[in-house]
Amino acid sequence: MVPGISGSDVGKKGFLERLEAGEVIIGDGGMVFALEKRGYTKAGCWTPEVSVEHPEALRQIHREFLRAGATVMQAFTFYASEDKLENRGNKPAISCWQVNEAACDIAHEVAAEGDALVAGGVSQTPTYLSNKSEADVKAIFQKQLDVFVKMNVDFVIAEYFEHVQEAEWAIQVLKTSNKPVAATLCIGPEGDLHGVSAAECAIRLVRAGAQVVGVNCHFDPETSLTAIRLMKEGLESAGLKAHLMCQPLGYHTPDCNKQGFIDLPEFPFALEPRLASRWDIQHYAREAYKLGVRYIGGCCGFEAYHIRAIAEELAVERGFLPDGSAKHGSWGAGLAMHTKPWVRARAQKEYWEKLQPASGRPYSTSCSKPTAWGVTQGHKDLTQQKECTTDEQLKQLFQRQQMVS
Amino acid sequence: MVPGISGSDVGKKGFLERLEAGEVIIGDGGMVFALEKRGYTKAGCWTPEVSVEHPEALRQIHREFLRAGATVMQAFTFYASEDKLENRGNKPAISCWQVNEAACDIAHEVAAEGDALVAGGVSQTPTYLSNKSEADVKAIFQKQLDVFVKMNVDFVIAEYFEHVQEAEWAIQVLKTSNKPVAATLCIGPEGDLHGVSAAECAIRLVRAGAQVVGVNCHFDPETSLTAIRLMKEGLESAGLKAHLMCQPLGYHTPDCNKQGFIDLPEFPFALEPRLASRWDIQHYAREAYKLGVRYIGGCCGFEAYHIRAIAEELAVERGFLPDGSAKHGSWGAGLAMHTKPWVRARAQKEYWEKLQPASGRPYSTSCSKPTAWGVTQGHKDLTQQKECTTDEQLKQLFQRQQMVS
Amino acid sequence: MVPGISGSDVGKKGFLERLEAGEVIIGDGGMVFALEKRGYTKAGCWTPEVSVEHPEALRQIHREFLRAGATVMQAFTFYASEDKLENRGNKPAISCWQVNEAACDIAHEVAAEGDALVAGGVSQTPTYLSNKSEADVKAIFQKQLDVFVKMNVDFVIAEYFEHVQEAEWAIQVLKTSNKPVAATLCIGPEGDLHGVSAAECAIRLVRAGAQVVGVNCHFDPETSLTAIRLMKEGLESAGLKAHLMCQPLGYHTPDCNKQGFIDLPEFPFALEPRLASRWDIQHYAREAYKLGVRYIGGCCGFEAYHIRAIAEELAVERGFLPDGSAKHGSWGAGLAMHTKPWVRARAQKEYWEKLQPASGRPYSTSCSKPTAWGVTQGHKDLTQQKECTTDEQLKQLFQRQQMVS
Amino acid sequence: MVPGISGSDVGKKGFLERLEAGEVIIGDGGMVFALEKRGYTKAGCWTPEVSVEHPEALRQIHREFLRAGATVMQAFTFYASEDKLENRGNKPAISCWQVNEAACDIAHEVAAEGDALVAGGVSQTPTYLSNKSEADVKAIFQKQLDVFVKMNVDFVIAEYFEHVQEAEWAIQVLKTSNKPVAATLCIGPEGDLHGVSAAECAIRLVRAGAQVVGVNCHFDPETSLTAIRLMKEGLESAGLKAHLMCQPLGYHTPDCNKQGFIDLPEFPFALEPRLASRWDIQHYAREAYKLGVRYIGGCCGFEAYHIRAIAEELAVERGFLPDGSAKHGSWGAGLAMHTKPWVRARAQKEYWEKLQPASGRPYSTSCSKPTAWGVTQGHKDLTQQKECTTDEQLKQLFQRQQMVS
Repeated sequence: MVPGISGSDVGKKGFLERLEAGEVIIGDGGMVFALEKRGYTKAGCWTPEVSVEHPEALRQIHREFLRAGATVMQAFTFYASEDKLENRGNKPAISCWQVNEAACDIAHEVAAEGDALVAGGVSQTPTYLSNKSEADVKAIFQKQLDVFVKMNVDFVIAEYFEHVQEAEWAIQVLKTSNKPVAATLCIGPEGDLHGVSAAECAIRLVRAGAQVVGVNCHFDPETSLTAIRLMKEGLESAGLKAHLMCQPLGYHTPDCNKQGFIDLPEFPFALEPRLASRWDIQHYAREAYKLGVRYIGGCCGFEAYHIRAIAEELAVERGFLPDGSAKHGSWGAGLAMHTKPWVRARAQKEYWEKLQPASGRPYSTSCSKPTAWGVTQGHKDLTQQKECTTDEQLKQLFQRQQMVS
Repeated sequence: MVPGISGSDVGKKGFLERLEAGEVIIGDGGMVFALEKRGYTKAGCWTPEVSVEHPEALRQIHREFLRAGATVMQAFTFYASEDKLENRGNKPAISCWQVNEAACDIAHEVAAEGDALVAGGVSQTPTYLSNKSEADVKAIFQKQLDVFVKMNVDFVIAEYFEHVQEAEWAIQVLKTSNKPVAATLCIGPEGDLHGVSAAECAIRLVRAGAQVVGVNCHFDPETSLTAIRLMKEGLESAGLKAHLMCQPLGYHTPDCNKQGFIDLPEFPFALEPRLASRWDIQHYAREAYKLGVRYIGGCCGFEAYHIRAIAEELAVERGFLPDGSAKHGSWGAGLAMHTKPWVRARAQKEYWEKLQPASGRPYSTSCSKPTAWGVTQGHKDLTQQKECTTDEQLKQLFQRQQMVS
Repeated sequence: MVPGISGSDVGKKGFLERLEAGEVIIGDGGMVFALEKRGYTKAGCWTPEVSVEHPEALRQIHREFLRAGATVMQAFTFYASEDKLENRGNKPAISCWQVNEAACDIAHEVAAEGDALVAGGVSQTPTYLSNKSEADVKAIFQKQLDVFVKMNVDFVIAEYFEHVQEAEWAIQVLKTSNKPVAATLCIGPEGDLHGVSAAECAIRLVRAGAQVVGVNCHFDPETSLTAIRLMKEGLESAGLKAHLMCQPLGYHTPDCNKQGFIDLPEFPFALEPRLASRWDIQHYAREAYKLGVRYIGGCCGFEAYHIRAIAEELAVERGFLPDGSAKHGSWGAGLAMHTKPWVRARAQKEYWEKLQPASGRPYSTSCSKPTAWGVTQGHKDLTQQKECTTDEQLKQLFQRQQMVS
Repeated sequence: MVPGISGSDVGKKGFLERLEAGEVIIGDGGMVFALEKRGYTKAGCWTPEVSVEHPEALRQIHREFLRAGATVMQAFTFYASEDKLENRGNKPAISCWQVNEAACDIAHEVAAEGDALVAGGVSQTPTYLSNKSEADVKAIFQKQLDVFVKMNVDFVIAEYFEHVQEAEWAIQVLKTSNKPVAATLCIGPEGDLHGVSAAECAIRLVRAGAQVVGVNCHFDPETSLTAIRLMKEGLESAGLKAHLMCQPLGYHTPDCNKQGFIDLPEFPFALEPRLASRWDIQHYAREAYKLGVRYIGGCCGFEAYHIRAIAEELAVERGFLPDGSAKHGSWGAGLAMHTKPWVRARAQKEYWEKLQPASGRPYSTSCSKPTAWGVTQGHKDLTQQKECTTDEQLKQLFQRQQMVS
């Protein structure tokens, strides 16, 4: 049987079709961060071999997102490129093909339990960072795309690119599949890391062939929407049309510089105090909708309950609540069942909407000063290697870090 | 076949046997909060019917805790008492027996995948809060215990009691099973809600028959350990012996009053900024160990990676790392594989140990003033009811809340 | 004897002469806020009748600024315009002429105790806010200028204007005196309240005749310097030349909108936690100097020790320390005399330079959301009146406030 | 003429007489900190030679406190003991007698402008810290007392003692003058630095002969009142009677250990964010009054407007407002004269009473960890010397500091 063509799949409404009908597409949350906390992915390399090693764990998180209202099951193929799977000593005994295939398989399986679409995605590569040729970089993308085509995903995504140039190359490869292409950069209002403005980035993504454009990761919802506003204005000025997509962090990052949360001192192991509440996400969903964004999801930090918050905020517009809302009263209504009367008194929108939650950390600040090495693609410091980082290399980095901060 | 007596179970070292040998028992994390975020339990009633409704989701979270290093699979029977399952309009079409039995079954199944023990637990009851008789309250506990006996759990836990009196009644019931009994109150250094000191509480728990005593939930690790220190001193003064157990919140709550985090304005839907990092938990594990606590786990807010942090901090004392550490370098060592050199520079203990993480919330405070209604068991305001809270009742609560704050 | 021509005054180097020689002119601090705290000016009307009512108090604060290193004794004529002295029920039994004359007299007296210059200043008027004619507004300025000319001040200042148009009118009046004219707006990087950019504002001030331009009040040092950078770039683009002047708040206001600190909820009676330390001001003095600003002073919140901090930071450039440094070791050196050894250990630049001081306020945030009524000159809400605000008017304002926040 | 017996002084109601009649005595604020900011005292040695060097500056600040409502003009004799005037290289060319005499003279002069009392005070000594004999320490106190007797002050104060033993010695000396004696320790709820409880300290002060006892300096108002509550309970248990006195810091210091604000990293040059607002002080005045404290003043950080806040809060109880209130509407009423309507809307108690002011410092925490060397009188590290601290000594301290923090 052709993958993705199960019985329940027949007649499923297509990706672009839905967007053109004005439907809200709800994305999923951040796989790699959530699975790291659950013990299945490793911070540092961030690669998704879990699809082969522990399919039950991946299947479960997909189900949580589906239950929370996600319209898309994005196969967990993030950083599943051949060059990333073998970088700095990371060498899973599993091939690039296997990882991507298993990820698509699980995504299809869970999507079929609901009315969800399946997407496959490619992301930025060590090859590009290391200043290799366009052909080298495109070859990397092609290998993932071959799997997506074979596994018959509904659409493809080029996501998490810091440089619009690499995203263009990815789109050009993805377009050869004749599948709809969505493309998101991990940039903020200051634009890409080579200094291309957010507006110009959007224009270049659309001209390269993406039908859906926007941003993902690296910045909090508010900052991400500011970037998308600039992209939207850029497209309008250029007379171009595209659907808008936003999949920001589930962390508050008002203090980021243009490199995003990677540069925050808390990345990646002490971001907890920045984690968004469900109410922050309802606010984001509303603002995104008002701005005209119709593909609304999340990235690192977004868990199932954040996706559910999007689905609940837009329940009227979409006409239904997600399955997961069976275990969640809107705006805290479930608290009417609490045993303590002063907690029952919190069962109201006015209470949660206004609350600015305390950190419980009197020795912490509200903002951090990001690391600011200020180098990006094209700089030798970013050349990647297959071998483990040596102790000598680490020692030099520690010293350099202390000089900078 | 008798439940819990699988092949792999034969020869499993017993609970008290391990403690008496000086082993560290690692507990699991907070089921009800984690599953609420995943979409399977409901905040407000907090009942665990997921064991019947979505066994795969419960099985998966058990596996994450096992993989993270937990020695105990605590069957998810929290608030699975008959009176709590039917309170304020909560009426799952599933019986008390079914919920408890399914929970024990899943706990046994996952425990058998490792070397883990299975526990069943009882908690405080609406019946007690509503000022009913000792016999009424004990009858509630007996019903859960009947399942635990039939399902042959390794030991039983009386946990999450705000009043030592109710915990004593629970222990008295549990003791009839001849299984080892652990008992934890959800109190801080100020003692129980009837004004019994922490030291006196410990003495009463041991005199009632508990072999392991301590605290769980309601307070952060630091506050909880302060309470345990007082309990330990109380036991020593009274010439009593017991093992110590600590399962605190995974949230920072320095601003709590004696009612604990229930009274914080952020409870339960905006606690995110208070969430502990893995480094906070390593610190906790070390402090707990130094204090002599040998049953070290967590409660609400504790996820798999927090449990893994306990197992990693005490790896030398225990002689092994958990399976989950395959996807985690101690003290951030995995970052040596990161593509950006300034992130690789964070691959060291000194970096993470000292970091005080920022909240990213310039409009939030570091502490909150807890709600302070100051009523507890014995007060009519706490009488429970089977019917839904009416709109009129909610309206009165909203008004009262505004007068108090 | 002609005022201001005392013996010690003869041969005093002129204002522009100093600036053209590249000298750093140090301004004074915030009279009205400091004297409010001392009990001599009233928050709300902010008028300077203290010059007549309590000359000894005004003389003393002038001496503190002189001793701290101020090169300018700015006569305390802020808001001493005829229309401001009689607004909303404020009716001192002292004429506009008397207030301004007494202020100049005291400034001359203290200036003669050192080598200081004397300045007289005019500020924005209720007449302009109430949408009156150019002739009406200019007549107001002329009345103060008449005193300054009679009292022979060394130069005149047009300061604290929210609208560049009114500042131009003020400059045009002041220029008739043939004295050097300095002009500062109370704007930030977003420009004036009618929407004129900071760059354009600078150009218009110079074209109106000001030889020295910049900003004062309303924003913290960092924000103010950002505004001056824009002004400087504007002047360079237009091929214009002028000396630069900065007299910012002594409060941290990163959270201001374009209306400045007036709109912060803490204004004017709870700004304490925002108060700058002497080290903040040393940092400011250095940054201002690097930007090319040569008239460096302060406004509300700046006390004598802040002015001393400017003088100490620029002691090498200026070639001398102020008298007040006899009671202050640079960078905390005086702590070498402390009785406690751990305080003596703080007698070093490295210690104070890096310290981010705690607020001691766990229930306070780091930023506030400003009030945002968004109205300015031209809007009827800003029409002034001679009569007291009525209770009815106050009641309406309270209600409106609650709707906005 | 005998000092202090001017015409206006005849018939002035005595100190104890007022207290026994139930009157509220309002103290003054913090001379040494305020004058350091104005440029007349030096942080580190903290000695008060300003009385001779710049009498006009001292006279002015006394007038501000008088105008603000202070009932006591405390001669500025803090640290004017012979051994403190010559410590660690501090050698004013002015004798101990001169400094104390000039201070009393100015206090009398300003007191006579109102209905104020004059007090002279002694404080802890380097001699005691250096472990010298009781006779040596008492000889130091006697020299200041000789001036107070000659200058005929209304009463004497033993204040700012970290060790109750030294305070007892001071009281014993002061009692020989037959003047009323007030005594305050700079302690918090944890008691004195030798470990004597707050309750026991109060008992010992009264038994030594003090008619008025309490605390001053080192802790914020809230912490200080907690200490006084303990002292009051101690006195009641012991069946002793005394009037209560409180002169706390004008800084928020919830994070202090028992050594008080000296140990905070911000002491003494970066305490600004901790500075109390006038509303904080109104709250303090009310709480102090409710606790039965009838001598209510302030110490370091308290400026005239803070003293005015005490006088305004207790205006009904005392029957009058201070002169300074002519320039201050109660609870912000003066803002009814502001030009901007949204600021006029703040002219109300409800607004200011609830406001938790922001710090404007997103890179600062709310609490600090105090330095904790944990040594006090009796330890060789505290031996004082006449000579300047050498560079070698400073270097050792810097190193030690880095090891501790």
